Amino acid sequence: MSDDIQSAILDMGKKARAASYELATLSAEQKNNILRAMAEGIMAAETEILEANAKDIAAGEANGLSRAMLDRLLLNSKRLQAISTAVREVADLPDPVGEVLSEWTRPNGLRIVKKRVPIGVIGIIFESRPNVTSDAASLCFKTGNATILRGGSEAIHSNRALAAAMQSSGAACGLPENSIQLIPFTDRSSVEHMARMDQYLDLIIPRGGKGLIEKVVSTARMPVIKHYDGVCHVFVNDDADHAMAINIVLNSKTQKPGVCNALETLLVHKDVASSFLPKLATTLTSAKVDMRADEASLPLLQGASPAVEDDWRTEYLDLILSIKTVSGLTEAISHINAYGSHHTDSIVTQRESDAMRFMSEVDSAVVMWNASTRFNDGGEFGFGAEIGISTDKLHARGPMGLAELTSYKYLVYGSGQIRS
Amino acid sequence: MSDDIQSAILDMGKKARAASYELATLSAEQKNNILRAMAEGIMAAETEILEANAKDIAAGEANGLSRAMLDRLLLNSKRLQAISTAVREVADLPDPVGEVLSEWTRPNGLRIVKKRVPIGVIGIIFESRPNVTSDAASLCFKTGNATILRGGSEAIHSNRALAAAMQSSGAACGLPENSIQLIPFTDRSSVEHMARMDQYLDLIIPRGGKGLIEKVVSTARMPVIKHYDGVCHVFVNDDADHAMAINIVLNSKTQKPGVCNALETLLVHKDVASSFLPKLATTLTSAKVDMRADEASLPLLQGASPAVEDDWRTEYLDLILSIKTVSGLTEAISHINAYGSHHTDSIVTQRESDAMRFMSEVDSAVVMWNASTRFNDGGEFGFGAEIGISTDKLHARGPMGLAELTSYKYLVYGSGQIRS
Repeated sequence: MSDDIQSAILDMGKKARAASYELATLSAEQKNNILRAMAEGIMAAETEILEANAKDIAAGEANGLSRAMLDRLLLNSKRLQAISTAVREVADLPDPVGEVLSEWTRPNGLRIVKKRVPIGVIGIIFESRPNVTSDAASLCFKTGNATILRGGSEAIHSNRALAAAMQSSGAACGLPENSIQLIPFTDRSSVEHMARMDQYLDLIIPRGGKGLIEKVVSTARMPVIKHYDGVCHVFVNDDADHAMAINIVLNSKTQKPGVCNALETLLVHKDVASSFLPKLATTLTSAKVDMRADEASLPLLQGASPAVEDDWRTEYLDLILSIKTVSGLTEAISHINAYGSHHTDSIVTQRESDAMRFMSEVDSAVVMWNASTRFNDGGEFGFGAEIGISTDKLHARGPMGLAELTSYKYLVYGSGQIRS
Repeated sequence: MSDDIQSAILDMGKKARAASYELATLSAEQKNNILRAMAEGIMAAETEILEANAKDIAAGEANGLSRAMLDRLLLNSKRLQAISTAVREVADLPDPVGEVLSEWTRPNGLRIVKKRVPIGVIGIIFESRPNVTSDAASLCFKTGNATILRGGSEAIHSNRALAAAMQSSGAACGLPENSIQLIPFTDRSSVEHMARMDQYLDLIIPRGGKGLIEKVVSTARMPVIKHYDGVCHVFVNDDADHAMAINIVLNSKTQKPGVCNALETLLVHKDVASSFLPKLATTLTSAKVDMRADEASLPLLQGASPAVEDDWRTEYLDLILSIKTVSGLTEAISHINAYGSHHTDSIVTQRESDAMRFMSEVDSAVVMWNASTRFNDGGEFGFGAEIGISTDKLHARGPMGLAELTSYKYLVYGSGQIRS
């Protein structure tokens, strides 16, 4: 059985590679027309897609999925419209492919042009939410990449229906065959087979929980771009404006607690702990935030419970905040570098030199001065769309937009030069 | 024993991570002064280094290493001077760290600055040649990265002496402790322990044969930048200037046959095979190049032997050339994409449209028009130095200079912005 799956996946890989060469020759206009056709195709297939989704929901209920999981899985007319709109919006974004990144001429007359090109074939492995099918496929297609999608078993009917709608409507408008392929079965071994197929897959992006990412990382032979935890910090310095700090903490923690750029640990300069923390406690308590405090801050935070060592490493993804006093900027920086996940960290201060040092020495994808951690986001950065927020340092770090789905090549223009 | 080695390597990783935070705060001037001190330190330790090297040579002779291997291993006064000069040249290069890659302001007033930063900790695994110790260490140090070096057992004494000279002379000038660490033992398991240590190593670069790279790729949990084979092609089009084509083929094949950017397969347009190949055969025979020809070209190449399927995939690294006629540009492109290693491929033609199509559709790191494949090189590109030629598409493709040894971070400047 696993051998059959392996050969089916190898076959998809081979076809994707062939498709990638066709994709690389499409113009921006051709790609945008196809994307708009796919956006329409999704709405035209509304009945089929919602019927398929109803099967997933029924299976999910029978298997006892949580209400939250069922909600992530659910499609309705409004959500499908949003999915279609998102595909159309990708068409409206500028195409990074073909961009000249730099060019120069060597003393021997060789002209060298560094140009943005598609990566090739990208594997996307994701869980539950069916919209990842269309989001990932449209972003990868826009950048001239072929995709092999492997969604979670709980959304298999929805994913198949969505992919089929995009494939058929795209094909009618010139989408090269096998540009967008969805693994049609849910056998767990398919993840492993994908991760080993480095002859056909140039990149794997796992979108999902730590277990999934771990599995891909430990198996993959090709590059993986990881979207790990966000154990994000705000550090309130001794000179911080308290009203601003409370706003930023509240927004970072509560505006959307279940996401990777939400605040998880607050660090407060010891000299302002007694003036700042009691006010903060009132605000956080009104916002129903559960506080876990270190020894020094515990008496200053009404309603807080004691934090344990594990709290400093935990991504709660919930209305819980760990709070620690620090002796100053140096301790704040070393705490963040030691316990954080190098995702998003913000300092609240009026002192420019402290902000500069914080942003320079905190080893995170996004470092902020007087701003909510929630701004680490492709949309908020103005990228138009994002495939995720990378916690890696190679190739893509932080919000990943279209540019991060491309590679480059060097074009060398000569007139017969040889090397001596 | 392997447990001891693992814990020793984990300890080196932890120390390297700590060093990387110190390194990130050094100015370009501080780093350049340290590099110059290390260049002097290498020459000051000439006696110790050459004595250590003599031990490696003696052991290599006792173990029956080939003459070529022994020559790669050998250091003498002149070679050590070249090693020292190379370190000083790295000091003279511009420092990419701190470069602003882009910056913009969002409608809400947030200013976003994308800035080049060190990667962090880089592991380099290499074979035989001791100069990789100083080359890799100096390039990684220049870009603010800590390094853990793991050289081949046959060069262990030379590598230790070189590393010790750099460490002590660097330390006297402010090199942070543990910035440059060499794994002091030669147990084979150390490669595996390094490859699994993703909590401390941000990147591994294996420099060596296919076996070594394969081993790292299949074990590594962190990003790997690979320097695989160069199965490089020249395609001689039907309108090519024959004298230019012969020059380019000869230079690409023979100027330095043992390197990855040397020519391995020549493709010739069928319409010019009978006029071009006999002339070429004369030249190649004078240059002692062994020709392996397909059926159509065999009768046109005096002295050639028949090629077999494997020849089209082989990196000879020797004075051997496989030669094939193709029906035209389309077949040339698909042959290269199917059989090549996506390294360096060149077209010889006068027709601009054909050159453009070749450079666009050939999926290689470096694509050339009327130039020798030997120009795919960091020095020839003007990068000043290179750590290698990447055959990957993520992060670094083609010649890897200093810029490719850096990552970036986003600095976000706010004034209290929160997300609504």
